[in-house]
Amino acid sequence: MFPQHVIARKRDGQALSRDEITAFVRGATDGSWEDYQLTAMLMAIFLRGMNAEETAHYADAMMRSGVVADLSDVPGIKVDKHSTGGVGDKISIPLAPMVVACGVPVPMISGRGLGHSGGTLDKLEAIPGFRTDLSLSAYHAQVAKIGCALIGQTKDLAPADKKLYALRDVTATVECIPLICGSILSKKLAEGIDALVLDVKFGRGAFMKTRAEARQLAEALVRVGQAGGKQVRALLTAMEQPLGRAVGNALEVAESVACLKGAGPADVMEVTYALGSHMLILGGVARDEADARQRLERVVTNGTALAKFREIVIAQGGDPRVVDDPRHLPQAKFQVPLPAPRAGVVGDVDAMGVALAALRLGAGRAKASDAVDPAVGISTLVKIGERVKAGDSLAVIHANNATALADAQGMLAQAIVVGDTMPDPVPLIAETLV
Amino acid sequence: MFPQHVIARKRDGQALSRDEITAFVRGATDGSWEDYQLTAMLMAIFLRGMNAEETAHYADAMMRSGVVADLSDVPGIKVDKHSTGGVGDKISIPLAPMVVACGVPVPMISGRGLGHSGGTLDKLEAIPGFRTDLSLSAYHAQVAKIGCALIGQTKDLAPADKKLYALRDVTATVECIPLICGSILSKKLAEGIDALVLDVKFGRGAFMKTRAEARQLAEALVRVGQAGGKQVRALLTAMEQPLGRAVGNALEVAESVACLKGAGPADVMEVTYALGSHMLILGGVARDEADARQRLERVVTNGTALAKFREIVIAQGGDPRVVDDPRHLPQAKFQVPLPAPRAGVVGDVDAMGVALAALRLGAGRAKASDAVDPAVGISTLVKIGERVKAGDSLAVIHANNATALADAQGMLAQAIVVGDTMPDPVPLIAETLV
Repeated sequence: MFPQHVIARKRDGQALSRDEITAFVRGATDGSWEDYQLTAMLMAIFLRGMNAEETAHYADAMMRSGVVADLSDVPGIKVDKHSTGGVGDKISIPLAPMVVACGVPVPMISGRGLGHSGGTLDKLEAIPGFRTDLSLSAYHAQVAKIGCALIGQTKDLAPADKKLYALRDVTATVECIPLICGSILSKKLAEGIDALVLDVKFGRGAFMKTRAEARQLAEALVRVGQAGGKQVRALLTAMEQPLGRAVGNALEVAESVACLKGAGPADVMEVTYALGSHMLILGGVARDEADARQRLERVVTNGTALAKFREIVIAQGGDPRVVDDPRHLPQAKFQVPLPAPRAGVVGDVDAMGVALAALRLGAGRAKASDAVDPAVGISTLVKIGERVKAGDSLAVIHANNATALADAQGMLAQAIVVGDTMPDPVPLIAETLV
Repeated sequence: MFPQHVIARKRDGQALSRDEITAFVRGATDGSWEDYQLTAMLMAIFLRGMNAEETAHYADAMMRSGVVADLSDVPGIKVDKHSTGGVGDKISIPLAPMVVACGVPVPMISGRGLGHSGGTLDKLEAIPGFRTDLSLSAYHAQVAKIGCALIGQTKDLAPADKKLYALRDVTATVECIPLICGSILSKKLAEGIDALVLDVKFGRGAFMKTRAEARQLAEALVRVGQAGGKQVRALLTAMEQPLGRAVGNALEVAESVACLKGAGPADVMEVTYALGSHMLILGGVARDEADARQRLERVVTNGTALAKFREIVIAQGGDPRVVDDPRHLPQAKFQVPLPAPRAGVVGDVDAMGVALAALRLGAGRAKASDAVDPAVGISTLVKIGERVKAGDSLAVIHANNATALADAQGMLAQAIVVGDTMPDPVPLIAETLV
């Protein structure tokens, strides 16, 4: 099977067979396709699309390009959550311990942040000593022992995805639903899970700008994940302003700990409970959303969720004192409030503007090889609709560098609008796809 | 200007600026674009197209990627002919000497055969000693001295085209009108010509299968060539059966010599005179087609066209005796007639079938690195509409290998159909685009 013949079929808008898709994906790792043939194919897929069956074959072939974790010896229905990424999205950190505390194992392999979007691994690594580079066997053992492991993608997990993603990044073929679908699901299918709940975000701070695009992606993910033999549900959630009041790695860990104590910002609690409810239902421990919600609230109230988090931190080498006192997390040199320029109502907090300010401070990566500073970021951020007096703090900027601080102050002042009219409330959870 | 941003614009169907196209083409030779970015762009162009202005910029940038011949010190309007390729298409060989004999300089840089289509260079090199690998300065000097040089593409001529063509070949991005247009014209614009006559072929034996496709390509070539400051005309000619009665390198040289003596097959004479007429008009030595035709016939009748060919052969190191006696051309070991299986009318001679038989004999290349055998091929081929008796020769097969001979006999017997009904005549020259 010559690569150019397979490319020509996709170029002409035909559906590829399982064998053709397998040859393409195998070509990405065994060198039987040249990089310049892979990218011609990626562009043909971008412009011609793939149907649900092709996308399922694609995800499956990418999963099989590496090791597939087998957690079948771990009792229970294993359920994970995946978010398409947003600003201030630390949900995985409070969510996983809550769900595990309710009796559902959560094996979770996460990514790092890139561009405006943060990554769970970077946030967890803000905890002194916390290791995310566990081997698959250590991951397996930890899930078996304490019901949860929060690790990074190992080299042997879906290597074809890693290769193709790097090529997509430099050939303008990233924003393509079947390719995104295959990339996400190949890694999730390789984790050893039975069910998956997806948080597909839309809005200025999300990858998908409109609800319609997000729905398209969510529908494809659900369909393709189900074709891969998993139970899959998806929530569409708004990402216009940051989630919660903290953006930055250590600051988001502190906010996550607050959530586990029941004292997190209302929006983070709402999304965490909503995603957790579906995880409990899929995990077979709750009858319905009301039952699930009660169970989640109970493990927060009685402290077992926080205890589970402490257990995970200890298992992965982290300093458990952060669970009791966030001052054990890295602290930035400068912690400067941004005063409100006038009295009024917060009319807007642009998630993208806040994200870029945090990126400027060093909280994220402009390119994959950049290092992140765990201490910096933005905390106690106002939310849309809140009333402020002139000079009230709109946010506290945490910086380790005076120039970056000054830049971030300017950027944040642009991103937060104080006006006179109360903006219409936007529902945070827009849709649920079951 | 990041390659991925330029790719994204074309991916989204936008027209690229001159600077963007120049960056892409420059990237093909200076390494500022990776091969995998070039091919993503080629696929985006294949599927999104380029308008006439973009295509003109593309051809221009490819021309400028190498040396551009300057023949402005050679008096007269320099005119070349280019064919999109067919089976038995040796037109350049009788045409160039005829046009030069009429007083129009013909600087001609040609290609080699690939696949079913023969190449002028391979044909000329069947003449013992004939060299086509002249430097651009030797080419220049010869055009100045005798009005004509028939050479191959030098390494420094449009190197971006060479690079991009090789990538297109293995990424299913060959059959794309703007890319074909740019490839053809970049080389022709670099030759130092003032005007160009195109022979765009359509039919089973041509690159373009339908007249509509050929017209589309011809229109684009004329428009883009004119945008490049050249006078351009195009003829659409049929390529259902081979042109002439010979297919194979030495055999086609012999047929070309016959044409220069006025004794060539009617179809080759017709196309040669038609293309030559437009060259004389563009070259400013003939008023109209009737005048041009008279001039061409005169140089054939009075022997000056043949004398010009002899001059070219001598100038390029070839054995001039082939002009007088084709037996000085390489001869194949086996020369075997193919007998007609029955009496009747020749209903079909499938150009592609004949080409593949010639390829099997070794007359052409399946891949670019193959060598060609100058002696082998097919001669005295019947034409559609001719009457034959059972056992009459339909063609003579020239072979140097008994197995290839047997295969070619079978292939040719399939390609030539003898029946009872006289087929409808097909006009050879379908359209002229001025």
